[in-house]
Amino acid sequence: MTDETDRAFCETLFEAFQTATFDGVGITRDAFGKGEAAAIEIVLRTAEAAGLRTEFDAAANLVVTLPGTEADLPFIACGSHVDSVPQGGNFDGGAGVVAGLAILASLAAAGMPLRRTLKLFCLRGEESAYFGRAYMGSSALFGRLSTDDLAVPHVVSGKPLAECLRDIGADIGRIARQEILLNPAAVAAWVELHIEQGPVLTARDLPIGIVTGIRGNIRHRVVTCKGEAGHSGAVPRWLRRDAVFATAELITHLDRHWRTLLERGRDLVVTSGVFGTDPAEQAIARIPGTVYFSFEARSQNVETLEAFYDLFLSECEGIGEERGVSFIFDRRVESAPATMDPGWVERLRKCARDLGLPDEDLPSGAGHDAAVFAGAGIPSAMIFVRNENGSHNPNEAMAMDDFLAGVRVMRAAILEAAR
Amino acid sequence: MTDETDRAFCETLFEAFQTATFDGVGITRDAFGKGEAAAIEIVLRTAEAAGLRTEFDAAANLVVTLPGTEADLPFIACGSHVDSVPQGGNFDGGAGVVAGLAILASLAAAGMPLRRTLKLFCLRGEESAYFGRAYMGSSALFGRLSTDDLAVPHVVSGKPLAECLRDIGADIGRIARQEILLNPAAVAAWVELHIEQGPVLTARDLPIGIVTGIRGNIRHRVVTCKGEAGHSGAVPRWLRRDAVFATAELITHLDRHWRTLLERGRDLVVTSGVFGTDPAEQAIARIPGTVYFSFEARSQNVETLEAFYDLFLSECEGIGEERGVSFIFDRRVESAPATMDPGWVERLRKCARDLGLPDEDLPSGAGHDAAVFAGAGIPSAMIFVRNENGSHNPNEAMAMDDFLAGVRVMRAAILEAAR
Repeated sequence: MTDETDRAFCETLFEAFQTATFDGVGITRDAFGKGEAAAIEIVLRTAEAAGLRTEFDAAANLVVTLPGTEADLPFIACGSHVDSVPQGGNFDGGAGVVAGLAILASLAAAGMPLRRTLKLFCLRGEESAYFGRAYMGSSALFGRLSTDDLAVPHVVSGKPLAECLRDIGADIGRIARQEILLNPAAVAAWVELHIEQGPVLTARDLPIGIVTGIRGNIRHRVVTCKGEAGHSGAVPRWLRRDAVFATAELITHLDRHWRTLLERGRDLVVTSGVFGTDPAEQAIARIPGTVYFSFEARSQNVETLEAFYDLFLSECEGIGEERGVSFIFDRRVESAPATMDPGWVERLRKCARDLGLPDEDLPSGAGHDAAVFAGAGIPSAMIFVRNENGSHNPNEAMAMDDFLAGVRVMRAAILEAAR
Repeated sequence: MTDETDRAFCETLFEAFQTATFDGVGITRDAFGKGEAAAIEIVLRTAEAAGLRTEFDAAANLVVTLPGTEADLPFIACGSHVDSVPQGGNFDGGAGVVAGLAILASLAAAGMPLRRTLKLFCLRGEESAYFGRAYMGSSALFGRLSTDDLAVPHVVSGKPLAECLRDIGADIGRIARQEILLNPAAVAAWVELHIEQGPVLTARDLPIGIVTGIRGNIRHRVVTCKGEAGHSGAVPRWLRRDAVFATAELITHLDRHWRTLLERGRDLVVTSGVFGTDPAEQAIARIPGTVYFSFEARSQNVETLEAFYDLFLSECEGIGEERGVSFIFDRRVESAPATMDPGWVERLRKCARDLGLPDEDLPSGAGHDAAVFAGAGIPSAMIFVRNENGSHNPNEAMAMDDFLAGVRVMRAAILEAAR
């Protein structure tokens, strides 16, 4: 298959996605809804036209199969999610589906026999925008949707997730019993191409990157710094318990620890996305007695997360003592990092080099279905494609040349493993 | 006059104030309104009963006079404001009025002839709660109420300040022409006793303090730090333009400069009372692209204010460059510091020492009518009395013993200057 065939095939698919799911502003492929179904329908027709086998698995994900010559060998799975956020872009999720279909279609067309079966999974319900829960389609496959998850109502319609799944043909009985619908031992690998949702590849001027892991996180939605309000003119520094100065010092110290950990080669990002004095009591001429802020640390490495979290707690204690304030924490929430399979990371890097492409490593800051497959014990890997304007908005900007570079690396790696 | 006579006289007055102006929660002596009038009426009756002369000046402030033997000598003025904030306390303003009346009454009762005339000013409209403008009664005396000021509507009734003044008998024609209603050359000094509105005397366990100056300030209501929003997991530290981390660093640097200036003996307080990410775009998983914050520095010294302000601007520039953010400033607003007369400060300190009382210096962080008198070129002085729970609330806690200590020092100093 030539690059030009790939290009035409993929452009047609992206255009079909765009036409079918444009909402007037951006792309809406709502999880378990009309937009998602429209995209799945497009993949289904295209796959059948390419002579590929299609079916829906027990969680109603579309599965496209290119059978191998040794049916008993674990198969190689690839793909991504078909759904998008409301008014999102065409590439977040869609790029991985198109890449997988292009690879399966081109190998089918080439008529080259492979030992291993290849399967493309067009996963549903990856975005949390609709139920406040992400990775629903892949989680269902591994018995990871709890009774609580299934009871969550759709944010707009109020219809529970269980009903939405049942209505599109999923086996809600088995899902509710948390049965394993896809045996991990039957899956040799999960390979997912996805647009980068950050700016690293653009900043480094690289078309693609090989993902080493998916960052986990530790979070507090709200930490409260309690000091004491007072007259901004009448209270000298030594008698102040200023919550803004205390929290500013905390953030500055965390920044210093962060830099130190980065210099030691640790993977870490730290964010306090919501931060502020209390609107009910704040005033220019009032020493702020209360600050509310969110805390989030993300890393590919659990130890780094825990070490940084300990530093956070110890800074809160030290600054609290020094400045006469106290820090009050809501429930700590966490999600585990996922490590990409080192063998597959190395395979992808080698294939990239062989194709004259860069083999840059990078972590994934956002979560992906790949983390669910990795969590089930399946060797997993991801290729990121450069994308200029972030994701979850209509301005996602993935160049076809970059995308096709990713497809070439992915095909080469899959071929190597499937032969 | 014995301390016990003072105590009985003053307690009776404070009780009368309390009874007449209690609003069910705290004290309300609304500027140019009923509560203020009720308190003035109490002072008027008490002064007349004590054989003192009473009159209203051209700004409708009550003036109580104890004539001296040399009528041509500049007189010594004392007093404070009779109004209070809504649901305030009995002592903010009231303490200075009661102190002045106690001194004039006791000297009248003693029948001791003084060369200089003494005048007690019961000033109206000091609190900005009603018109958003402070020191209205004293400002009117020195031609400092502008046409704009006079047009300001009452926050509740909407009635313009000019009408409120006219209705209580002020000479609104002369006030509007900004005439000087009280010739500064005729006033030898202004002496004002006031509760401390901060916690310094309580923290230092001192009943009274001698005020050295009234802090001026430089303010920005809103400074905007503009960085760039982004995915909290997907953007590494080197590509971030995080407005919270930038502003936290700014506050921490300002704190460092503040400490350095204090160590060099400069007077300074620094506050960012309103601080926060943009509620319209903030999220735990989003790098904050915007922070809004207020800036206020206060000092008794203009040079310290300007030097600190320059440090502020230069830190904004440095951090902006370092972190890829920009700081955008609204209009700079300032008020000049007022220096208390060094001769009077020394006199009050000496009198305190002679009476076996502490002679601790301290700045006033809040503004006072004394700043208006000082601004008119009248040698001015203030005594602060310890007060536990701040001001502008019903819990102001001034002990009578502390208050009477202040009265004794004030009487001794006035006697020394009036003889």
